[in-house]
Amino acid sequence: MKTAIFEKAGLMTVEEADKPTLQADDDVIIKVVRACVCGSDLWSYSHGDDKAAHSDNSGHEALGIIEEVGSAITTVKPGDFVIVPFTHGCGECDACRSGFDGTCDNHQGFTNWSSGFQAEYIRFHYANWALIKIPGQPSDYSEGMIKSLLTLADVMPTGYHAARVADVKRGDKVVVIGDGAVGQCAVIAAKMLGASQIVLMSRHEDRQQMALESGATAVVAERGEEGIAKVREILGGGADAALECVGSEGAIEQALGVLHNGGRIGFVGLPHYNSRPLGSTFAQNIIIGGGSASVTTYDKQILLKAVLDGNINPGRVFTDTYQLADVNQAYQDMADRKTIKSMLVVAE
Amino acid sequence: MKTAIFEKAGLMTVEEADKPTLQADDDVIIKVVRACVCGSDLWSYSHGDDKAAHSDNSGHEALGIIEEVGSAITTVKPGDFVIVPFTHGCGECDACRSGFDGTCDNHQGFTNWSSGFQAEYIRFHYANWALIKIPGQPSDYSEGMIKSLLTLADVMPTGYHAARVADVKRGDKVVVIGDGAVGQCAVIAAKMLGASQIVLMSRHEDRQQMALESGATAVVAERGEEGIAKVREILGGGADAALECVGSEGAIEQALGVLHNGGRIGFVGLPHYNSRPLGSTFAQNIIIGGGSASVTTYDKQILLKAVLDGNINPGRVFTDTYQLADVNQAYQDMADRKTIKSMLVVAE
Repeated sequence: MKTAIFEKAGLMTVEEADKPTLQADDDVIIKVVRACVCGSDLWSYSHGDDKAAHSDNSGHEALGIIEEVGSAITTVKPGDFVIVPFTHGCGECDACRSGFDGTCDNHQGFTNWSSGFQAEYIRFHYANWALIKIPGQPSDYSEGMIKSLLTLADVMPTGYHAARVADVKRGDKVVVIGDGAVGQCAVIAAKMLGASQIVLMSRHEDRQQMALESGATAVVAERGEEGIAKVREILGGGADAALECVGSEGAIEQALGVLHNGGRIGFVGLPHYNSRPLGSTFAQNIIIGGGSASVTTYDKQILLKAVLDGNINPGRVFTDTYQLADVNQAYQDMADRKTIKSMLVVAE
Repeated sequence: MKTAIFEKAGLMTVEEADKPTLQADDDVIIKVVRACVCGSDLWSYSHGDDKAAHSDNSGHEALGIIEEVGSAITTVKPGDFVIVPFTHGCGECDACRSGFDGTCDNHQGFTNWSSGFQAEYIRFHYANWALIKIPGQPSDYSEGMIKSLLTLADVMPTGYHAARVADVKRGDKVVVIGDGAVGQCAVIAAKMLGASQIVLMSRHEDRQQMALESGATAVVAERGEEGIAKVREILGGGADAALECVGSEGAIEQALGVLHNGGRIGFVGLPHYNSRPLGSTFAQNIIIGGGSASVTTYDKQILLKAVLDGNINPGRVFTDTYQLADVNQAYQDMADRKTIKSMLVVAE
C-alpha cells in the first residue's frame, strides 16, 4: 500500500509499505477514503520540530471503510463507513462517561492519540467504542458532505470543545481567537450553542468571510490592546466567553483581555504560554478549561446529526483537495496559507 | 469609638479613634454588632507580611446596623440590620450581572475590598447595592443564628464560590481541600448543590467531625500521593470536582491528583502556586476557576434564605467568641488553631 512519509522538514514523500495487520483483539484495519492535513502536522513540516527524518506521517483524521476487525470488536463490521477520530476513548472510564474521551483515563497520552492516517490502510487501536459509524457508503454523499464528515474526525469537535468547556450558553457574547480550521469550527459551535454575538479575530479577508457565513456577527483585524478595545466597543463591554484556538502567548492574552471579570476561556491549541501561572486568573475570576476534544462523544451526541441534517457546514474549511500522491503540495499550500485546510483523496 | 489596631506581628491592640463620617454620596456609616477574624488577617499577624506597624486592622466581615446614609443611597436606611460583605459590587456591570460581584468590573482590586471592620463604627463605600438586609433586628435572633448570618459576609459565600465555579452538580463526587472555615463552608455548599459524595482532606479530628455533621461523607487524613490514593479508593475512581480552599502548592497538586480527566477545580484561597503554568492542565482536560466570592449575589439569591430557614448552619465555624477588647486573644487562638474562627462581639 501507499503511505505518506515525513522525509524531513519541508518534504513529505509517498512510499510503498506493508499493509497493517491486526495486532490486538480490539484493533481494526481501515481502508482510508479521505485523510487530511492538520495544523499540528505543520509543526514538524515547517519548523523541523523533534520529529525523526524518514518517519511515519502524523496524520490523524480520516474517513474510511472497515476492512477487518479484531475478535473483541462488537460495534463495527467490515464494510462499515466510519469517522476515524484522532483519539481512542474507552467509553467506560470516569473521563469518558463525563464526556471527556479526548483524555480517556484508561488510554492516556500517546495511547489515546492517532497517527499515520495519511495512508491507504491504517490500524486503529482501542477501536471498539471510539469509531463513529456513518449511515450508508461514501458514494451516498456529495463531496461537500464528505468534507463536513471528515471535519468530525478532529477540527469540528475541537472547535466544539472550546465552546463547551467555556460553557457557551444562549445569549452569550463570544470571541473566537484564531481563524484557522479550528477557529472556524469554534464559530460554528458558538452559534450552535446559542451565542448572541460572535466576534472572530482575523486579519485574512477570505477567513473573515467564511466565519461571517458560519455565524460570526463581526470580525476584528486588530491585535493586542487595539484589538481588545475594538472587541469591547463592538460588544458594548466585555465578552462572556473567549475561545482560544491558537495556543500562543498573544492568543491567551487576547482572550483574557476581551473578557469581563467572571468570564470563561476554552482553549484547544496546545498551550505555549508557560510564563503565566495557573492562579494568575484569580483577580479576574476567570474560569478556564481546555484539552483534547471529545470527538466520539460530540459526534455521537450532536455533531454527526447536525452535519447530516445540513444544519452546519464545517467542510468549507477544506479549501483545496489533493491526491495522496501530492501530499507534499497539500502540506506546502497549507503552510503557505494558500489553503485553510488540505483534504487528501485516498480512495473514491 | 474603639477600633482594633495592627500594632505589629503577634500584637493587636484596641484604641480610641474618631468615628468615621460620610465622605461620598454612596457611603454608609454602620454601627458594628459582630465582626470576626479571617484566615487572611493572620498573614500579617503570624508572619509579619508587609503590613505597616500601628496600622488599621484588616477585618472585613461584619453584621451591623445602618447609622447614617449618603444622599445617593436608596436601598437601606438608618436602623436596618445588614450583612456587611468584604466586597462592594456595583450590581450593574457585566461581572456583577453575570454573578461575579466579588470582582466587579467597576470597582477593581482594593476599591472592591473592605478593611477596618474590627471597630465600633465603619464607613462602607460603594454601598448602594452591596449590602444585604436582614429582616428584623439582632435581638430577634439566637446567638447561633447570628453566627451563621455573620458567615454570610465572607466564608460561606467563599465556600459556595468554590463549588459554583467548579460547577458542582447533583450526583457529583467532590473533594474539599482545606478544613478551615472556608473548607467547612465548601462542604456545606457541595451538599447544597447535590453532591453524592463529599470527601474532606483533614488531619484534625474536631474539624473532621464538624464536616461530617455538615454533609461530608468521608474524611481523609493522609496527604500527597497517599492521600490521593485513599480518596480514589473511597470514590471508586477520580473525583468530578475538587474545591481548593487553601492556596498552597500542595493543595493544588492534591486537587489535580484526585480528579479524573475532565474534572473541575474551584479555588478560593489566594493562589501561591506560581510554579505551575496556566496551560499545564491541558493533558488532564481540567476546567479551573477561582477568585473572590460573589457575596452579595449568593446571599441575596440563596444563602440568606438557607440560613434563615435553618437549612444550613455555617455558624458552627465560630468555635470561640471574644469581646472587641480581647481582639489579640481572638487572633492568637486562631493562629494557634485553638479555634477554627474567632467571632468578635462589638455591640449587643
